[in-house]
Amino acid sequence: MSSPWRKRLYRIIFHHDTEAGRAFDIVLLWLILLSVSAVVLESVPAIRARWGPALYTVEWAFTLLFTLEYVLRLSCVPSPVRYATSFYGLVDVLSILPTYLSLLIPGAQSLLVLRAFRLLRVFRVLKLGQHVGQARSLVVALKRSREKITVFLAVVLTIVVIVGTAMYLIEGEGNGFTSIPISIYWAIVTLTTVGYGDIAPRTVPGQMLASVLMIVGYGVLAVPTGIVTVELSRVGRAMEAEIACPGCGMSTHDADAIHCKRCGARLPVEPSPQP
Amino acid sequence: MSSPWRKRLYRIIFHHDTEAGRAFDIVLLWLILLSVSAVVLESVPAIRARWGPALYTVEWAFTLLFTLEYVLRLSCVPSPVRYATSFYGLVDVLSILPTYLSLLIPGAQSLLVLRAFRLLRVFRVLKLGQHVGQARSLVVALKRSREKITVFLAVVLTIVVIVGTAMYLIEGEGNGFTSIPISIYWAIVTLTTVGYGDIAPRTVPGQMLASVLMIVGYGVLAVPTGIVTVELSRVGRAMEAEIACPGCGMSTHDADAIHCKRCGARLPVEPSPQP
Amino acid sequence: MSSPWRKRLYRIIFHHDTEAGRAFDIVLLWLILLSVSAVVLESVPAIRARWGPALYTVEWAFTLLFTLEYVLRLSCVPSPVRYATSFYGLVDVLSILPTYLSLLIPGAQSLLVLRAFRLLRVFRVLKLGQHVGQARSLVVALKRSREKITVFLAVVLTIVVIVGTAMYLIEGEGNGFTSIPISIYWAIVTLTTVGYGDIAPRTVPGQMLASVLMIVGYGVLAVPTGIVTVELSRVGRAMEAEIACPGCGMSTHDADAIHCKRCGARLPVEPSPQP
Amino acid sequence: MSSPWRKRLYRIIFHHDTEAGRAFDIVLLWLILLSVSAVVLESVPAIRARWGPALYTVEWAFTLLFTLEYVLRLSCVPSPVRYATSFYGLVDVLSILPTYLSLLIPGAQSLLVLRAFRLLRVFRVLKLGQHVGQARSLVVALKRSREKITVFLAVVLTIVVIVGTAMYLIEGEGNGFTSIPISIYWAIVTLTTVGYGDIAPRTVPGQMLASVLMIVGYGVLAVPTGIVTVELSRVGRAMEAEIACPGCGMSTHDADAIHCKRCGARLPVEPSPQP
Repeated sequence: MSSPWRKRLYRIIFHHDTEAGRAFDIVLLWLILLSVSAVVLESVPAIRARWGPALYTVEWAFTLLFTLEYVLRLSCVPSPVRYATSFYGLVDVLSILPTYLSLLIPGAQSLLVLRAFRLLRVFRVLKLGQHVGQARSLVVALKRSREKITVFLAVVLTIVVIVGTAMYLIEGEGNGFTSIPISIYWAIVTLTTVGYGDIAPRTVPGQMLASVLMIVGYGVLAVPTGIVTVELSRVGRAMEAEIACPGCGMSTHDADAIHCKRCGARLPVEPSPQP
Repeated sequence: MSSPWRKRLYRIIFHHDTEAGRAFDIVLLWLILLSVSAVVLESVPAIRARWGPALYTVEWAFTLLFTLEYVLRLSCVPSPVRYATSFYGLVDVLSILPTYLSLLIPGAQSLLVLRAFRLLRVFRVLKLGQHVGQARSLVVALKRSREKITVFLAVVLTIVVIVGTAMYLIEGEGNGFTSIPISIYWAIVTLTTVGYGDIAPRTVPGQMLASVLMIVGYGVLAVPTGIVTVELSRVGRAMEAEIACPGCGMSTHDADAIHCKRCGARLPVEPSPQP
Repeated sequence: MSSPWRKRLYRIIFHHDTEAGRAFDIVLLWLILLSVSAVVLESVPAIRARWGPALYTVEWAFTLLFTLEYVLRLSCVPSPVRYATSFYGLVDVLSILPTYLSLLIPGAQSLLVLRAFRLLRVFRVLKLGQHVGQARSLVVALKRSREKITVFLAVVLTIVVIVGTAMYLIEGEGNGFTSIPISIYWAIVTLTTVGYGDIAPRTVPGQMLASVLMIVGYGVLAVPTGIVTVELSRVGRAMEAEIACPGCGMSTHDADAIHCKRCGARLPVEPSPQP
Repeated sequence: MSSPWRKRLYRIIFHHDTEAGRAFDIVLLWLILLSVSAVVLESVPAIRARWGPALYTVEWAFTLLFTLEYVLRLSCVPSPVRYATSFYGLVDVLSILPTYLSLLIPGAQSLLVLRAFRLLRVFRVLKLGQHVGQARSLVVALKRSREKITVFLAVVLTIVVIVGTAMYLIEGEGNGFTSIPISIYWAIVTLTTVGYGDIAPRTVPGQMLASVLMIVGYGVLAVPTGIVTVELSRVGRAMEAEIACPGCGMSTHDADAIHCKRCGARLPVEPSPQP
């Protein structure tokens, strides 16, 4: 059954290197955006009251369209079982199932919001961007920062647990710090400088500890920014430079360099990385 | 009708390279600032009660002045129709129209705040700054960061829609998360670390998801900063060495360049830039 | 009594360079995490009501386990008195004492939260990470930034005291600014962009001063980030090129170094670090 | 009257290069800190009730001490009138006057908080730090960023005025946006991610505009950080390097370099900038 028709369909749906494949991705992303917008709008009481029936029709149209897409995917993929049990395969099913379930169970429709997870496909389209060059350096920099950011998160969590526990002891249950988990939640809200104000220290020692936490948070905020900036800068420099000069061997040239900036020799033409 | 008088006026009003042109820009900017201040102050009930008549006179004075300026602009511009339909042309009309309309329709005056849009002219004066060099590198860096920031915004919007939807399901309508758009608004308020506190999670799973969102927001905040810093640094390095190449005239060389990277000509030795 | 058994135990418990020592550290960290989780969960009224007896058993199990660990530490350490009076020695005692005290004094159990301080041991395990290289550069960068960050903190505290005092005079006791310490607390909440909103200026001059403080805070936020980024970048560059000098053995050379900057010996050509 | 005694006193009080001068600065700073603390504590109702008389004595002691210091300053300075009318001279008078005035006018004591401005002397002591090298690069970097930050502030103020005006029109007076200045205050609170929540948009278009403002603020926050980081990095690099290599002339050496990293020649010994 590995007909050329199936192969072509597979290439269009799952690859991003053909004209048709790219068009398919863009159209799919717009459909997902529109369907998510419909679900989002339907949750507003005023809009549901007025446009309810129309949105119901739209919902069924998108469900049928995505069902068709799902069937096409299963029919052209080499191993349908493997796709159906993959992350994107499950998200695909979850994004159409609630509409069908709503025929049997009345409330199931509200699960349609699971469709929002289909938005994650945007990352697949961003993969296209990787070859454009700009997006790639971002992804590489974030991957390289992973280890340092893990260390950083461990430190942040330790701070948050200790300060949260201390605040539970200091403030007591009367001021909203009713349990240690709530106090830890407050510490996260404060350290990240979000500061809702639904829970706030009322006692003098509590406010002093909070002040210290805030100023620490201020300095701590600097660390992930520093990490990402340095990695981005390093990736940027590495990408600027991958051709050795035939004259002196130096390999750090700007992306737009034609001659070596040290010895003036003409650089070999690179097989155009930026289309 | 292309008299030398018209040409000179055009040069003064629309260009920034003559002494008179620059003076015109500065005076105009001050007038806009003063007129906007008048409108801003008039909106305060206590000030309106006391200085109402004086501010009314001031308003008419500025309106007549800006009307004169608008007529001068139209009279000296090569194509009056094209200017009248351009962005700045429309802003010019919108900033004077409400006062005249208020003679016919009583409430129209409140639209005078549209005059604030004239403040956008500050960007035009900043264009002057471009040639000073400092402001230019900022603009160039932001332009270069555009693509990466677009990717970044796509990721932020996806996060915000998914988390907003999840919070709507978790918290329910009882805790202020009355619809998905409101929940997305809350997610933006939280991710950007603004944290008004008008809507805040009350349930344990809601607070856990919010904590994750805040810590993610913490890391995510690092990305645009990293992008802008790297681009500013790259632009800065390129601008450090503004020596014109004797071969091709290009002036953006790295600080350590000995040869022009475009044509390969040897660069002249710079007379020590750092004293 | 310096038996080889004691020496081996000492090596396992206090050093991190053997297989067994590393395993001990990891197991201990997990036990600390679990025991802290138990204490944290017990503080939630609903959980205490339902799982109280079970958590009571768990608490005693951990206390006995940590008592055993403490005895082992004291028995193998060269100077038991010095360990018992060290920071970690005191934390060890404080983390087991409350359970025993609760047999005598009913309320003493709530002090068990002091166990959270044992989490600080996570930093000891991070020491392992130092040799992995990634975490090390973070620690080095923060140490190098220390001086600049001290200057920065002095400036921030001066701003906060002056603005806090000014707000106390401007807003008065009616608007929540009941004393200068409270006003300073508000200034810290505002400058760090946390912004609880429990205290907020109500008068016009107060809101103007707050606006200036916020915009200053905006710029001030940039300083620690800049400091950490620059130090991280410098450390990163130094670590990029880890070639031992044939003359003096020093291994921190810049990426573009040809000769050792300490002894002047020619460095061996590196076999292409970036693949 | 230019006795050697006066000259020595002048050197101790106004210069920071002698042992005695440095000791004087440190002691003075501690006295200012203590006197400010006394004023700060006295503003707390509970403390005033209990320690009022003691703090009153302390206040008079500090006032007499600072009066003595002021008289000494005037007596040894070359031009007493010029010092008395300088910024620090006025601050000195303002910090002692309220205590004396309180003998005539009862409420004048509360003006003692003006003493907090004496804390600005910390910057004078930081000047000492300039020669240590670490603090200097911070000051230089901030000075160099001045122009770019001015441009940045102009853009921020324009955004804030336009968005504030728009919110006044959108939200109306019912939701707390009672005048344009209040709306501008709200826009600053939001853009700087402080987010008190005392004023927050309630209408759908208002919340949409606020969302846009927050995401813009997110990106805008990156700009000053980028500027300061780049300048700090540039200053750092420039300070690393001020000795020309006698072998090849290259001048970018690390602070700890003994040999040139390019040609291996021994670098001339610098007159030890870091003590």
